Amino acid sequence: MSQLEFRILHRSGNARVGKLKTAHGEISTPVFMPVGTQATVKALLPEDVWDTGSQIILCNAYHLFLRPGPDIVKAAGGLHQFMNWPGAILTDSGGFQIMSLAHLVSITDQEAVFRSHIDGSLVRFSPEDSIRVQAALGADIIMCLDHLTGWPVSRGDAREAMERTLLWARRAKKVEIGTHQSLFGIVQGSVYPELRRHCALELGAMDFPGYAVGGLSVGESKQQFYDILHYTCEFLPASKPRYLMGVGHPVDLIEGVMAGIDMFDCVLPTRNARHGRAFTFAGPLNLKNSKFATDFAPIEEGCDCRTCNSFSRAYVRHLFSAKESLAWTLVSIHNIRFFHRLMERTRQAVVDGSLANLRQQIQMLYPI
Amino acid sequence: MSQLEFRILHRSGNARVGKLKTAHGEISTPVFMPVGTQATVKALLPEDVWDTGSQIILCNAYHLFLRPGPDIVKAAGGLHQFMNWPGAILTDSGGFQIMSLAHLVSITDQEAVFRSHIDGSLVRFSPEDSIRVQAALGADIIMCLDHLTGWPVSRGDAREAMERTLLWARRAKKVEIGTHQSLFGIVQGSVYPELRRHCALELGAMDFPGYAVGGLSVGESKQQFYDILHYTCEFLPASKPRYLMGVGHPVDLIEGVMAGIDMFDCVLPTRNARHGRAFTFAGPLNLKNSKFATDFAPIEEGCDCRTCNSFSRAYVRHLFSAKESLAWTLVSIHNIRFFHRLMERTRQAVVDGSLANLRQQIQMLYPI
Repeated sequence: MSQLEFRILHRSGNARVGKLKTAHGEISTPVFMPVGTQATVKALLPEDVWDTGSQIILCNAYHLFLRPGPDIVKAAGGLHQFMNWPGAILTDSGGFQIMSLAHLVSITDQEAVFRSHIDGSLVRFSPEDSIRVQAALGADIIMCLDHLTGWPVSRGDAREAMERTLLWARRAKKVEIGTHQSLFGIVQGSVYPELRRHCALELGAMDFPGYAVGGLSVGESKQQFYDILHYTCEFLPASKPRYLMGVGHPVDLIEGVMAGIDMFDCVLPTRNARHGRAFTFAGPLNLKNSKFATDFAPIEEGCDCRTCNSFSRAYVRHLFSAKESLAWTLVSIHNIRFFHRLMERTRQAVVDGSLANLRQQIQMLYPI
Repeated sequence: MSQLEFRILHRSGNARVGKLKTAHGEISTPVFMPVGTQATVKALLPEDVWDTGSQIILCNAYHLFLRPGPDIVKAAGGLHQFMNWPGAILTDSGGFQIMSLAHLVSITDQEAVFRSHIDGSLVRFSPEDSIRVQAALGADIIMCLDHLTGWPVSRGDAREAMERTLLWARRAKKVEIGTHQSLFGIVQGSVYPELRRHCALELGAMDFPGYAVGGLSVGESKQQFYDILHYTCEFLPASKPRYLMGVGHPVDLIEGVMAGIDMFDCVLPTRNARHGRAFTFAGPLNLKNSKFATDFAPIEEGCDCRTCNSFSRAYVRHLFSAKESLAWTLVSIHNIRFFHRLMERTRQAVVDGSLANLRQQIQMLYPI
């Protein structure tokens, strides 16, 4: 009973430009989703996030499950109301965090068992638990719990994790969710084409309203990453939205669009912001650098973000020197806006058929 | 050539309600000035500060002298432009910070010599230096460098510091400042009535556009503080604005108004906010307390601040648990707004002749 509607408006090769309609607004795709792990995009009021042009953000079911807990968020009226976010929300299932952040105790077909990174308590977390948590949180798009592997990983281990991901997807589908919610399946299979193909086809047969490609950009080479991404997308239903999880670098976004991806999330713009690293269409800047102490230009000439409208590099540099948290706020606003401007240019390039050109320009500024 | 205009509109006992006109807007007095030590009110965009009803903020010449330096702020077009603050600004002279924050090496009639709290470098700072720094920063109201004493202090030491403060005020007056700037004198003399009286009368004879009472609430008893404050105000020119420096507690604000004070500054609302302590007209709240985990009411029912309009105690409590800086932002907005609402009520109470009543109510909620 998903309320999700996805319309593709333009195509160029495998790339698509479309509209994704949710119960919390219509989203222009390909879209970049800022990350609000703990029900806040770090250092920003929701209004500031909205003003950057964000239409959908990502929150983490793993974090919100542990703190404050789904019951509290549900009692608050759901995540949108709890954090006062007017746009759409996607929650990740916890699969990635269980492997990367928690202290994994065991993972079986039944469930994952891990120790909380907050207080060390032992937690059992099944694919059904993940969906129940995400149903309580109330995000517009929710994700199946997946088993992703580290890197490097043997074909056998990758196969086992992929098969478990499929098993869990089947079980996840049976859990009741909100009428405004849509459940996406996640393709695993590491860098092994036949595993990715099998997983994509099996998930496709389950008829999810959308699909994610997970477990990429975790240590494999860029070429492996790009090759397997393009290959995987071939086997995903063409009419459904596709989401590349946890990616990423500006060039990776364009490469993802060329492969047929419609949605991205990454902590890069906000995390880099807190370290003084700004993205611009003239290349990256380290705003902590002393050369900016007397530079009264905005972070980026021609940028329409609130930071560039009102503050200078010298002021931002001063805030970093003085260890003032407003520095995080100002650069986060700019960097998120940069990612949206990059996606605007990418969408235009799909329409114009000039994606390869754009990719080359961005690759020059942000070499990979 | 001060552009400052001060009109008293109502009186009740020694209390006054007025308008203070600066080159950056007209201010309703008595007024509370939020503190933006390092050219930022911590964790807030200037627009957020403005939205709380702030008309004037305080910045610290000591901090900005050391970092980023007055030349940089001046080159940026002055402090208003550097930090993008549309309202009025008052800069403190550095007197308090030299005694409390820096490592004082020596203080003579000529100058203070101290080591920077940032890098330990040796700095010479004369009363003329302070004015030149503040002239470069470009605040609307600037302060004479004063010599304040710790607590306890002997009458002899307090006299020496007061005499030096007078000497420095005479020298400060001779330094050229911006045509939009107004220089205030500062009364010292600790708890010794004859020293305060002498200092107030001498400064009054120098005809400053405004006067501050400094060196109070530094360790003396509340009764000593209140007694000397009332006594000192008697000897200050009645037609000029009066500023009680670094105060303070809600009851102290009302007591100050009753003594005839028109301006206050204090870090209390913002510092407390960062520790989860909220001010309300139903008493203080510690928002880190677990009892707020499921409390979906706003911080204060009936409060018109942006935080109370959109966020619950449960959400703010979650942000503190999760160590998210948005917690500082949300409670700072509320607390600054509380201080402005308190001043609104205080101004109304002056008009209504009900200050004693208000003082009693606030004293019940915030015992001293």
